[in-house]
Amino acid sequence: MPHAFPTPVRASTGARQSSIREANLALATRTVLASPTPLSRAGVAAATGMTRATAARLVDELVAGGILAEQEQEAAQGRGRPARPLAAGGAIAAVGLQAGVTFLAGRVVGLSGDVLAERREPGDFRDSDPGPVLERLDALAADLVARVPSGTRLVGAGLALPGIVSADTGTLLVAPNLGWSDVRPADLMTRTARAGLSLRVGNEADLAARAVAEASPGRPGPWPDFVYLSGEIGLGGAAVLDGSVLAGRHGWAGEIGHVCVDPDGPPCRCGSTGCLEQYAGRGALLAAAGLPVDHPLTDLADRAGAGDPAAERALDRAARALGIALAGAVNILDIPVVLLGGHLADVADRLLPPLREHLRRRVLSGRWVTPRVEACPAGPAPGAAGAALLELAGVVADPARWLR
Amino acid sequence: MPHAFPTPVRASTGARQSSIREANLALATRTVLASPTPLSRAGVAAATGMTRATAARLVDELVAGGILAEQEQEAAQGRGRPARPLAAGGAIAAVGLQAGVTFLAGRVVGLSGDVLAERREPGDFRDSDPGPVLERLDALAADLVARVPSGTRLVGAGLALPGIVSADTGTLLVAPNLGWSDVRPADLMTRTARAGLSLRVGNEADLAARAVAEASPGRPGPWPDFVYLSGEIGLGGAAVLDGSVLAGRHGWAGEIGHVCVDPDGPPCRCGSTGCLEQYAGRGALLAAAGLPVDHPLTDLADRAGAGDPAAERALDRAARALGIALAGAVNILDIPVVLLGGHLADVADRLLPPLREHLRRRVLSGRWVTPRVEACPAGPAPGAAGAALLELAGVVADPARWLR
Repeated sequence: MPHAFPTPVRASTGARQSSIREANLALATRTVLASPTPLSRAGVAAATGMTRATAARLVDELVAGGILAEQEQEAAQGRGRPARPLAAGGAIAAVGLQAGVTFLAGRVVGLSGDVLAERREPGDFRDSDPGPVLERLDALAADLVARVPSGTRLVGAGLALPGIVSADTGTLLVAPNLGWSDVRPADLMTRTARAGLSLRVGNEADLAARAVAEASPGRPGPWPDFVYLSGEIGLGGAAVLDGSVLAGRHGWAGEIGHVCVDPDGPPCRCGSTGCLEQYAGRGALLAAAGLPVDHPLTDLADRAGAGDPAAERALDRAARALGIALAGAVNILDIPVVLLGGHLADVADRLLPPLREHLRRRVLSGRWVTPRVEACPAGPAPGAAGAALLELAGVVADPARWLR
Repeated sequence: MPHAFPTPVRASTGARQSSIREANLALATRTVLASPTPLSRAGVAAATGMTRATAARLVDELVAGGILAEQEQEAAQGRGRPARPLAAGGAIAAVGLQAGVTFLAGRVVGLSGDVLAERREPGDFRDSDPGPVLERLDALAADLVARVPSGTRLVGAGLALPGIVSADTGTLLVAPNLGWSDVRPADLMTRTARAGLSLRVGNEADLAARAVAEASPGRPGPWPDFVYLSGEIGLGGAAVLDGSVLAGRHGWAGEIGHVCVDPDGPPCRCGSTGCLEQYAGRGALLAAAGLPVDHPLTDLADRAGAGDPAAERALDRAARALGIALAGAVNILDIPVVLLGGHLADVADRLLPPLREHLRRRVLSGRWVTPRVEACPAGPAPGAAGAALLELAGVVADPARWLR
């Protein structure tokens, strides 16, 4: 996350001048991108406390470098010289990729939040060989890059994976539902590397949560704090506090899908028993209802609504397990908002009432702040969307680097 | 926590000058207090990147205001004018108080970390009336204050309570094991108020964890990241990341004692069932072994060592519950260090081996980073110690306020 000076920093001399300029360029960028209505240069000065001259000079630099752009119409403020409203530059973008268990996907997102290109291919990659799968994703990425308007500057590429990653070494340590371990995607995705894009790997649920926390690059989403559940076959999670995804010591925080709900419960692919994923993962939900793993979850909800006992049992079992694990998460984190993303959004209508009851009862502070649980339907590849946003966040945090 | 500029900030003119001075005073204070060996003015300049003249001027202000002090012997560095080593000022202190379920305690701690006065009184405050208990604590506090050396400036008082508090309103919302709810201690502790000390309330486990995270005011303890369990009758918890206690949205994070370990387990005073506290709280541990609640826990461990089946069962049951709840906490937080404080330190020898096995198996990332669990014996009133440190942290974060 950007380290931000909360107010502009002024200096006249000394060795720190360049870093003060960098901090103020970041402040101006963040201010323009986060504003719900377009700001002029004078608006940037007013919002940041900079002088008009400083704000105008910094904005000029940012416009020249393509980070910001001037819109055509006039901003409705002030007199004198027409005040040009500012927006994110249109020619800066990032690539987000996702290797899911049931699909491959990619998306190119501009600094304004516009989707410049997008592609998704279904598949079944359970217990697959990472080589051919990542080669296919590499080709998909190359196709996306080829479709980006000419003149677009791609600032980075991120890859969302459903497992534990080491961001430092760019390695997927393990993805139980893919059956992959110790994979370094950059070594296998050579076309992406040849395009000059260094590939950053991230956890799918963390990145999907980022796509909820950020409405568009630099602009906060509706919830500053939330626990997020994601997933397809398995069940990932993330915790967001003050708009930032909680990383923990190694970037492995938020693994709510592997919280133990019942030590005598079914074995999990992770090596433990009774993990939440074994009750509320897509595969577990369908198996408990006697349905195949590729059966639509919406039909499971319909069956339960029509009184099918196996479907009802599967959903009640999932709600109970979610209640136990999420109450634990809220007790530990004090984040009393839970968003059910991924496949859980498809069955949320049925899960929410019992889940709310569990949380009311099991959260220690539930008497003072009623935990809120909502469905949060995701796009077709939420991890890819978040991966692109993370790359763009680097531009927002340090625009000076992209002006050089 | 202090909001810190990572490097000194320079300015020649403008409205921000005073806040830059404040930030640099804080940086100089923090640098002196955190240094493992005494620094001179030149050492402060070298460590912070300030000019020698700026560092010397700021240190002069801090010494004049009593925040820092000059030691007698010369620092072993440089030539020319003797370099006086710097230390924390000796005349600034804070009061830490604790209302436990089995004791009342207070401690006055100086900015150097010296304990200037201390007192602890055992008692049994289960299901007690808060009025008389807090009046007794008020008298204890007045006695402590009377014993502080004259000339000492008391900067604040903090009160550790075994429950959920609202720091904003100074209210204890609920402390299940005291049987208290909606208590505002400042209204009942009038002598403390008359002494000019505003009373800040905090959660006992959070404050006890602070006393582990900070070796002395402004100086980090041995662990930057850890999950901490505390408690006497009940079981509190806290999570520390990068030296800071995780607060969550309302300051209620870290309630690991109320993570549900078995939904069909015994009812908890909090209203839920099967909370970790019902297996690993002191009361639960002793009851499971058929012993009274005031029986020494060390004897429980001795009995288990001698093969007493009830004692063995009680400890195995606690270890299993701790394993489930703590594996969940590590999966959610990615803090792979757990410290068993409070009463758990007394039975840690017996708990640690099975607990380590549970964590190895149930933490998703356990294959890459083996979770570490250690006993962390606490002083007689760890919450009181932490409460005093929290008040002193306010001085370290903003010394300028105490120079006015």
